Amino acid sequence: MLSRVTHYDLFYWPGIQGRGEFVRLALEEAAVPYVDVARTRGGMAVMMKLLRGDGAGLAPFAPPFLRSGRLVIAQTANILAYLGDHHALVADDEASRAGALQIQLTIADLVAEAHDTHHPIDTGLYYEDQKRPAAQRAAAFVRSRIPKYLGWLESTLERRGGTWLLGRHFSYADLSAFQVVEGLTYAFPNAMSRLTRRLPRLLRVRDRVAARPRIAAYLASERRLPFSEDDVFRHYPALDAPRGGGVKRGASTWSGGHAR
Amino acid sequence: MLSRVTHYDLFYWPGIQGRGEFVRLALEEAAVPYVDVARTRGGMAVMMKLLRGDGAGLAPFAPPFLRSGRLVIAQTANILAYLGDHHALVADDEASRAGALQIQLTIADLVAEAHDTHHPIDTGLYYEDQKRPAAQRAAAFVRSRIPKYLGWLESTLERRGGTWLLGRHFSYADLSAFQVVEGLTYAFPNAMSRLTRRLPRLLRVRDRVAARPRIAAYLASERRLPFSEDDVFRHYPALDAPRGGGVKRGASTWSGGHAR
Repeated sequence: MLSRVTHYDLFYWPGIQGRGEFVRLALEEAAVPYVDVARTRGGMAVMMKLLRGDGAGLAPFAPPFLRSGRLVIAQTANILAYLGDHHALVADDEASRAGALQIQLTIADLVAEAHDTHHPIDTGLYYEDQKRPAAQRAAAFVRSRIPKYLGWLESTLERRGGTWLLGRHFSYADLSAFQVVEGLTYAFPNAMSRLTRRLPRLLRVRDRVAARPRIAAYLASERRLPFSEDDVFRHYPALDAPRGGGVKRGASTWSGGHAR
Repeated sequence: MLSRVTHYDLFYWPGIQGRGEFVRLALEEAAVPYVDVARTRGGMAVMMKLLRGDGAGLAPFAPPFLRSGRLVIAQTANILAYLGDHHALVADDEASRAGALQIQLTIADLVAEAHDTHHPIDTGLYYEDQKRPAAQRAAAFVRSRIPKYLGWLESTLERRGGTWLLGRHFSYADLSAFQVVEGLTYAFPNAMSRLTRRLPRLLRVRDRVAARPRIAAYLASERRLPFSEDDVFRHYPALDAPRGGGVKRGASTWSGGHAR
């Protein structure tokens, strides 16, 4: 474990959980003081200044980013790897560190795909301007992608045979698994309820994370923002259709998606 | 720098560059012996066995993955961070290591968006089954996303004022910048030719990487596969329309894509 940092500034869009929530959960679990800068008076101006590259170091491409002294770190998984090293949110051996980042990046891919169910065409347009392709993409996401990703997390837990995704030792990847399960359950309650019986270990991790004292205190606080339809996980009933909402096709149209 | 590993097994779909190419470039630059297992006789069966979780350690969600002794590491950026540490493909200080991973993850987001131009709805369908939304997504990608991502790389180079993305020191992020510029130039030649004058520093990095002796030797070898329409960067002229191919909308329809 590297030196323990005693204060952070977190920069993320105010009013939503978004990708920033993965960082908030890690900061809360680490019990390290932080300021959620954009939620403070004048904070948005500071964030936009750093986004324009007016700070020292590498300018972030997008929020979330974390400031630790002179170091500014962006990209959610990168921030979590940093916090993991500095605050014992992952065991201090190479296999554990690489394993946690591997799981985190796989969860990040799932989050990006969840986002694209409501924005399959253009992030610069509203959902309402891309509802038809959104319904098609969401159908494929619900049918194929959620089961594949969450099934991978479940089988990882099964193979490790432990309490947490990396086995005996808790890591930030468990916090992120909690968040993605919560987000998908908010956005796709029908789809998720059908999967419940196939994900017993993953749902126990979700419950164990929620019961960790610092996480429980955070979830009960005003710092935890509610899910909403301005966020990455959005509940649009039209995208959570239980069946029959998919693109019609014959067996011959499958390519296996091998370039993914 | 950690211990230098003397041999790797790389696992990736044979026949395409894909995400595996970012790893191949790093292995070639590091001049460490590796076997591209799925391209050898019987190699696909070995890869599929590891994907099913029959190996030791964490099963990968998808290729590429790298085997180093008993350690199996998946997720492109995670593999590159590992190779960076073990083979001096990034300077050995925290800011450089976090900076390289930050750039790599931003490039990974760009690659995922490039993929989704030909698969905006369903990775399990062919491009031909989603051509209309593909044209719409590609129009937005060409108009907004390529300039935003590559403009960020250009401004990073400008602010650092150095030869490479992290300034004075070469890193694996430079290899990945080379690859993404090459891929986008193959897939979207019209769009990229319009951007050339705005990206002088980035194109010089591309040229400098191509001229590095080990990379030049690799690019001239049979190990370097050609780009193709089975790959992540695909040249479909319909997706590279110079103008007028976008979704029509009024000024009021912009949300700014803040959840991205």
